[in-house]
Amino acid sequence: MKPIHKFNHVCVSVLAIVFASFTIARAQDPLPSWNDSPAKQAIVSFVQTTTDSGSTNFVPAEERIATFDQDGTLWVEKPMYAQVMYCFDRVGALAREKPELKNVEPFKTVLSGDREAIAKLPMKDLEKILMATLTGMTTGQFQSEVKKWLADAKDPRWHRPYTELTYQPMQEVLKYLRANGYKTYIVTGGGQDFVRVYAEQTYGIPPEQVVGTMGGTSYGYDKDGKPILTKEPKLLLNDNDAGKPQGIHLMIGRRPHAAFGNSTGDRQMLEYTRAGDGARLSMLLLHDDAIREYAYGPAQGLPDSKVGTFTQELYDQAQKDGWTVISMKNDWKRIFAFDP
Amino acid sequence: MKPIHKFNHVCVSVLAIVFASFTIARAQDPLPSWNDSPAKQAIVSFVQTTTDSGSTNFVPAEERIATFDQDGTLWVEKPMYAQVMYCFDRVGALAREKPELKNVEPFKTVLSGDREAIAKLPMKDLEKILMATLTGMTTGQFQSEVKKWLADAKDPRWHRPYTELTYQPMQEVLKYLRANGYKTYIVTGGGQDFVRVYAEQTYGIPPEQVVGTMGGTSYGYDKDGKPILTKEPKLLLNDNDAGKPQGIHLMIGRRPHAAFGNSTGDRQMLEYTRAGDGARLSMLLLHDDAIREYAYGPAQGLPDSKVGTFTQELYDQAQKDGWTVISMKNDWKRIFAFDP
Repeated sequence: MKPIHKFNHVCVSVLAIVFASFTIARAQDPLPSWNDSPAKQAIVSFVQTTTDSGSTNFVPAEERIATFDQDGTLWVEKPMYAQVMYCFDRVGALAREKPELKNVEPFKTVLSGDREAIAKLPMKDLEKILMATLTGMTTGQFQSEVKKWLADAKDPRWHRPYTELTYQPMQEVLKYLRANGYKTYIVTGGGQDFVRVYAEQTYGIPPEQVVGTMGGTSYGYDKDGKPILTKEPKLLLNDNDAGKPQGIHLMIGRRPHAAFGNSTGDRQMLEYTRAGDGARLSMLLLHDDAIREYAYGPAQGLPDSKVGTFTQELYDQAQKDGWTVISMKNDWKRIFAFDP
Repeated sequence: MKPIHKFNHVCVSVLAIVFASFTIARAQDPLPSWNDSPAKQAIVSFVQTTTDSGSTNFVPAEERIATFDQDGTLWVEKPMYAQVMYCFDRVGALAREKPELKNVEPFKTVLSGDREAIAKLPMKDLEKILMATLTGMTTGQFQSEVKKWLADAKDPRWHRPYTELTYQPMQEVLKYLRANGYKTYIVTGGGQDFVRVYAEQTYGIPPEQVVGTMGGTSYGYDKDGKPILTKEPKLLLNDNDAGKPQGIHLMIGRRPHAAFGNSTGDRQMLEYTRAGDGARLSMLLLHDDAIREYAYGPAQGLPDSKVGTFTQELYDQAQKDGWTVISMKNDWKRIFAFDP
């Protein structure tokens, strides 16, 4: 009898835990940082209808794909994209290695620290800085450099590491979707290799699920004969605008069932997602909270912005095509995990 | 007492099933189509050492990546790659749509059916045929066309659909690795979009885990205003030779722990995999079985081959660098699932 008795105890405990977890899971709100609003309801309804095997909108597990823009959708993009801050900071390191750069534009301007002059640099000069700081090293060296920078760099407003400036409500959406069998992807205009360095730790998104602007590499050997990949100044795909559905096709090969963005660069991804059969969720985050974060548009009369433009035309397309607009001000109880 | 009594019965049954499965799992050979050989032992040892949390070679679950060449490694590549057969067959359909092609080379030669003349077509002409048959349509149209072709087309030797000509021992390796937490990827010189059409059903490998030769797409709208992606004659990455580690970096962003190939086009992938820290498995399949499949090299004095070249130099590098050579003739009990 003794062993059976033991089993009995173990089993009752195991079952108790199973039932308790079940009850807690049902009672728990998967999106506690969201106010009860049509936006929250749209997410919950989408998950329920696509995971209910009795629903006509049921999506088989292998087809559950959700894509998220990063800058301005998952974390703060103001006053400037974190990656651009990285590139500016790297110019200093470059100039120490190659002092002759100190007298060459546009490096001279960046090194001057004159913010107004830097902000005025034309796209051609910005590209020179990106190429000089994002290519020419091995993929391993690049990873170490970015990791080191992320550990030290602080955002100018909150004085916190960039990786702490993710939106808590979106972190909850990522977890909620994953708990329901969705594979979550980042689809960013940022550099694929850059975002991969922190995506796993910051969002639980592994490198193979980061789709971004892609550069070529070359294959060679180091001095010990070990194979290395070197980052080359060759653009394979600009993962913005039409590049987002192109990048999704290239890297995933399936149309997402849910997509989240916040600017005109996400328009085609949201269109492409929404155009699929059955239930599809396309959501746009409107930054309308100048107090807790930033307010920019120019949709809805918000101030115009070059970083993360959200035009009135995009807002109107959302209404027309059945995308859901998330108001940061009205739909989110809190913005950051460190908020009270 | 009654409910507890019931729990008791349920629990004893559940535990009995758990223990029984455990015993069966331990007793079952995960690679029954392999003869006991150093090659089989290399696979089993690799899996055991990288999944044993007490081992210094332990690999965390998220880093368990295994990559497989397709043509000649997972399925038959002789007398010609299935995709090239598809392209030749599509020339007929193209000529029905555009009859003027009948008098234009290289289409005229392909339409003649003269095998010797077709085999002699220079690379430039072959590229013209690939571009004409693999681009210009939407990604959806392409998928339907390939699916339809695969349902009808038969291999000239076994008179079976190409998707039945996968190697049973390799199917077992795929399943064995996945059962041990490895994500299995195809890394093929074939077209990424082509292989994706059947990889999930044929190998259990989803589209997002197929890395292949990549072409660009353009984004537009059909006559109903629905977004479409059109396949463009723009090569983004030739996923052969150095292109394989480049494609792995682009699509996965991690170095594999295991890689399988069969020709000189896989050399860099095997080098790159093997050069990582800890236990890494690089394996090369030698086609030395003219009776049950094909024998070609020219390694080990086997006949020379343009489709799936395996040089003596590659064979020697395998010995030198610690890759394992699989002899189809000696290491495999059977080749296909339909073998007796």
